[in-house]
Amino acid sequence: MGVVTKHKALFLKEYGKPLVAEEVPTPKPKGEEVLLKTIGAGICHSDIHIWKGEAGAPFQLPMILGHEVVGAVVAKGDKVPESIKDGEAAIFYYAVFTEEDKYSRRGLTQHARTMRHRFGALQEYFLVPHYRFLVSVDGLEDIPASAPLGCAALTAYGAVKKIRYVVEPDEYVAIIGLGGLGLFALQWVKIFIPQANIIGIDIREDALEFANNIAKKNNVIFINASKEEPVETIKNVTHGEGVKAIIDFVGSTQTVATYIKTISPLGTYVLVGLLGARGLKLPSPFILMDTECIIQGNSMGSLPDLYEIVEFARKKRLDYRTIVTKRYNFDAEQVNKAFKEFDENKITGRQIITFN
Amino acid sequence: MGVVTKHKALFLKEYGKPLVAEEVPTPKPKGEEVLLKTIGAGICHSDIHIWKGEAGAPFQLPMILGHEVVGAVVAKGDKVPESIKDGEAAIFYYAVFTEEDKYSRRGLTQHARTMRHRFGALQEYFLVPHYRFLVSVDGLEDIPASAPLGCAALTAYGAVKKIRYVVEPDEYVAIIGLGGLGLFALQWVKIFIPQANIIGIDIREDALEFANNIAKKNNVIFINASKEEPVETIKNVTHGEGVKAIIDFVGSTQTVATYIKTISPLGTYVLVGLLGARGLKLPSPFILMDTECIIQGNSMGSLPDLYEIVEFARKKRLDYRTIVTKRYNFDAEQVNKAFKEFDENKITGRQIITFN
Amino acid sequence: MGVVTKHKALFLKEYGKPLVAEEVPTPKPKGEEVLLKTIGAGICHSDIHIWKGEAGAPFQLPMILGHEVVGAVVAKGDKVPESIKDGEAAIFYYAVFTEEDKYSRRGLTQHARTMRHRFGALQEYFLVPHYRFLVSVDGLEDIPASAPLGCAALTAYGAVKKIRYVVEPDEYVAIIGLGGLGLFALQWVKIFIPQANIIGIDIREDALEFANNIAKKNNVIFINASKEEPVETIKNVTHGEGVKAIIDFVGSTQTVATYIKTISPLGTYVLVGLLGARGLKLPSPFILMDTECIIQGNSMGSLPDLYEIVEFARKKRLDYRTIVTKRYNFDAEQVNKAFKEFDENKITGRQIITFN
Amino acid sequence: MGVVTKHKALFLKEYGKPLVAEEVPTPKPKGEEVLLKTIGAGICHSDIHIWKGEAGAPFQLPMILGHEVVGAVVAKGDKVPESIKDGEAAIFYYAVFTEEDKYSRRGLTQHARTMRHRFGALQEYFLVPHYRFLVSVDGLEDIPASAPLGCAALTAYGAVKKIRYVVEPDEYVAIIGLGGLGLFALQWVKIFIPQANIIGIDIREDALEFANNIAKKNNVIFINASKEEPVETIKNVTHGEGVKAIIDFVGSTQTVATYIKTISPLGTYVLVGLLGARGLKLPSPFILMDTECIIQGNSMGSLPDLYEIVEFARKKRLDYRTIVTKRYNFDAEQVNKAFKEFDENKITGRQIITFN
Repeated sequence: MGVVTKHKALFLKEYGKPLVAEEVPTPKPKGEEVLLKTIGAGICHSDIHIWKGEAGAPFQLPMILGHEVVGAVVAKGDKVPESIKDGEAAIFYYAVFTEEDKYSRRGLTQHARTMRHRFGALQEYFLVPHYRFLVSVDGLEDIPASAPLGCAALTAYGAVKKIRYVVEPDEYVAIIGLGGLGLFALQWVKIFIPQANIIGIDIREDALEFANNIAKKNNVIFINASKEEPVETIKNVTHGEGVKAIIDFVGSTQTVATYIKTISPLGTYVLVGLLGARGLKLPSPFILMDTECIIQGNSMGSLPDLYEIVEFARKKRLDYRTIVTKRYNFDAEQVNKAFKEFDENKITGRQIITFN
Repeated sequence: MGVVTKHKALFLKEYGKPLVAEEVPTPKPKGEEVLLKTIGAGICHSDIHIWKGEAGAPFQLPMILGHEVVGAVVAKGDKVPESIKDGEAAIFYYAVFTEEDKYSRRGLTQHARTMRHRFGALQEYFLVPHYRFLVSVDGLEDIPASAPLGCAALTAYGAVKKIRYVVEPDEYVAIIGLGGLGLFALQWVKIFIPQANIIGIDIREDALEFANNIAKKNNVIFINASKEEPVETIKNVTHGEGVKAIIDFVGSTQTVATYIKTISPLGTYVLVGLLGARGLKLPSPFILMDTECIIQGNSMGSLPDLYEIVEFARKKRLDYRTIVTKRYNFDAEQVNKAFKEFDENKITGRQIITFN
Repeated sequence: MGVVTKHKALFLKEYGKPLVAEEVPTPKPKGEEVLLKTIGAGICHSDIHIWKGEAGAPFQLPMILGHEVVGAVVAKGDKVPESIKDGEAAIFYYAVFTEEDKYSRRGLTQHARTMRHRFGALQEYFLVPHYRFLVSVDGLEDIPASAPLGCAALTAYGAVKKIRYVVEPDEYVAIIGLGGLGLFALQWVKIFIPQANIIGIDIREDALEFANNIAKKNNVIFINASKEEPVETIKNVTHGEGVKAIIDFVGSTQTVATYIKTISPLGTYVLVGLLGARGLKLPSPFILMDTECIIQGNSMGSLPDLYEIVEFARKKRLDYRTIVTKRYNFDAEQVNKAFKEFDENKITGRQIITFN
Repeated sequence: MGVVTKHKALFLKEYGKPLVAEEVPTPKPKGEEVLLKTIGAGICHSDIHIWKGEAGAPFQLPMILGHEVVGAVVAKGDKVPESIKDGEAAIFYYAVFTEEDKYSRRGLTQHARTMRHRFGALQEYFLVPHYRFLVSVDGLEDIPASAPLGCAALTAYGAVKKIRYVVEPDEYVAIIGLGGLGLFALQWVKIFIPQANIIGIDIREDALEFANNIAKKNNVIFINASKEEPVETIKNVTHGEGVKAIIDFVGSTQTVATYIKTISPLGTYVLVGLLGARGLKLPSPFILMDTECIIQGNSMGSLPDLYEIVEFARKKRLDYRTIVTKRYNFDAEQVNKAFKEFDENKITGRQIITFN
């Protein structure tokens, strides 16, 4: 990597204010660490939540946002094995942990006891704390656009895997919220649960249209919940049977209260979105008891999941490229513009930041 | 059955007021119907809820309460098969339905589309709408005391079956609320999940003591949540691992908000109690997402479950008799006293009404 | 039904010899019994096995063969409920039992302790021992052709349900033997496991061609095992991964020894065919141990399965009509011809006998 | 580790002949390798199979037998992390592989594509090819006796985990063969499936007695199959219900043909023993089809399993010490004696070789 000793990073210094560019010393990786030269970074709803100071958990400022990151290996600590090759492009699995335990040994890495989400993608060089958190994307057609595989695609993957054995042929799956995660979920349902009919729901006409393009197949129905009453519509569409599984990428008290009414006996409601972050009011528990339905939280996928996702992208079974609708250069002005557009709900699909 | 044409029934005429005795015509069973001469009837929390006008759903008054009923077959419609014998004692499965469907055919009778809970146990003769809802209890030592098998034992059975494959050896199961259902749940956990450690929780010292007598074994720990802070206590008891499954027979916003904090990754929280009937406020969804835990409603068990339960009672693997702590004669005064004592929280275990 | 007192039946009197027509008294249904006027009857491999005296179990001659039967309700015993309507067309579930038990209550009717397979379709009137074994096919386009739903479609259904949760997206399922059952299995895999790639295997070119027409989609590959070495071919097709699930409708020592070599780790091998009826020699158990694969026997489907199958036929998701390739009138000559053609391997698809 | 450059190893040079002691150069670990100073080594049935030239797969002689090994870390390659400490005692997981893949990432290490069983325990220093195959046993009371955890306990663990969700309360599990593996299986069933009744079967009276001492509890029944007809006995013991799960540590055509007759509908038969190595003849497939039972091969457990096993030993939930009934010093004479005694069926429990 030559003699780079400093690089540019964007700092969140004050909630809600523009990110600020600063030079930081470029670290030298030790032990199991690997240094990536950043190629692409995705912007995720939780980055926006933190930026606006609306995330549930406290963060220490200043901090560098971004957790969807793909980069090229440029330096390695002395304990990094030969299999990690210089120059190789790799995605970072951002749920890092320091110790193997009963969860991580069985691939449930998101539940490792020492797990912490690692941020810091918005800088030119990114230090990966252990080589095991890197998944090679060599051979992918569009490396920068693969950054969202590390969180958006992965979180949707975890959610869809939770419902895959619940759905009988011709039963319905509803996806609430057709942003980046919803668009990935749409594809995962088609790959893992092709026997299902899909109902895609959003309140933005452009998001619905974009999803319709991604869906490409005739067992998907879209509902604009700002134009038609969704509960009644779903009842009609499903001939009174309701939906067997719901993935809620909004997760507000209102979406839960609304869509839980459409769930079939023994159905599953997966909560992904964080709009209910300050407390979620469930409707009368009678619905839960009558249907004996399941409400399950979804954090994100596992490291083995990420390997599988990259494989689906490599085989072109997953279309990750079309979902990336907007690319910004890595400079303060562009990135701040990207955050603003996301926050103002102007984005369909997913944005990425590209680095030279 | 001789020439009985009238019998005594107790009517709820006004919410919260004493039940009133009246004579009613004794029906003659037609088609698949069976007439039982009532032997025993249990009093259940949902009877109390309805009596006080606090149940979520509306009921039409006057009505006859009681849905845990055991009786002797005294008359049968012409479509009732020979296998239903005159004089046989049988428990009534109160989640009756009129049509077989995809749920009931696989034994998930509580989800049959035409299912309705049938009340009316508090009368001397009880008309069963279809012989398939009768489970013989011939051979049981204490027929009147078997009435609560039809709801209390059954509901707890359904709840325990939801968690049985979740719990690894030496992991913890918490039972919140040690009334009649909790005492059955305690026994079902010992029968189905003997590899689990159990934590029994209540705020009534007498309930805890009574449960301790039922538990009889050394892998059960009891916590009086009115005396010690339960979250901290559970953390200590479980060495920081938390509990893998919780069955909540209270189901208030407070119990959910408290005990969800103790759940392990990928754990299950079964909601049975109805104290949150007017709306359940979940804590921050971050707990749900971090743990990816499941919240599942539990209505009651199935008809095949009821057959199994009677079998466990017959083999004396289930102690249903000790749980029946108080017996009242079937007359208005006694039954009203029973309701009042239940409502005033004076009862440990379960009450039954006996008939001559 | 007017005054029918006698009807024609075909008797197997001597193994391997032509069936003989005789008049028999038409029974009057009692209790729960129902009398059908036969509309259609399918011919199944096990009828042929019995006819030739090659079935494993002993039978008492003379007997009336045939167990796939659809007919119209013409008379009912006094315990048969109103829901069974005169004139209604219904399929018979031939795994009859006399007592409900822990298996049948949960819909696992094929494992009811008193279960016996009931034969006797090859006659003009057929006595159903209990109305619960009838599934209405009212509304189906082609009632006579629905007879094979009662065994061929059902047995294949049971087999496919055993593997549905085993197969990951893009993994392979092999179907060995593309006769009637294999053709149904092909369709069930497409309905229940559409994420799978399918490999259809037979040694008859016409069977392969016919299956190709049924398959209609591009994720099915066919292998003629008499022309190419199947193990090597499968390895190539699956890029060395092998197949995740196999359904073997032949079930000979040779097919098992051959195809078990192609199974992936933790795969499932479902045995349906009975060619190994006199003892099945497994290959070296090292294959079983290295892969930890499952070998599971498949008897047939359940009564709830049969309801679902009829529903798939009604919605035209299942094409049962094309599979019926040959229809014979119900007379001794025609039926004996049908048996001979089946035995001489001249049939692709499935034969039925039609009645006036 | 000072200046050790040579150490003693025992070589199998000719099948069936005594092992021969020789000096070999002590390797210096490179990269991820770790050198253990051997503390204990277990003798396993597959060592005996190989020694006698009876194993199914070919081996290249001369070779060093033994795959159950515990030792102390004495030297490490430069890629071995700090967490592997000098002097630490650790068990070797002998199913080594060179590349992580979709199986190993989810903890199914025994199915890693590059997996090979690594032998070579019978020498004073043992080179572990990668530190990930070491599980610390620090804190265990009896380090040498922990060697069999690495195969005997692990293989039994894998077998019991295959049946744990199959067995309902009070149903029966049969363990065929009460040698080292059977004795571990007995304990795992008690830990994982305490709701089961156990039937232990052997033909050696001393093995049955020894197992009886290990069992310690009253829901275990023992059958000496050389003295009583086991099929009839099992039918009586189980009141005609049969056993729900069988673990067969013999695995001969005879044991399979005998005990498959006792299996209940939808039961599971786990094959572990290799006596059928030259081909296993199944009884008539009708038993498989009628019961729809599962036959599953069992290779061994996974690396995550081994961590759990050590934890059970540490908590004294697993009694691994009593099972070690005989200890031999590491010299040619003693080890050859041990092999001979094993082969002559003189051993109850498990033998280990200890090193100074």
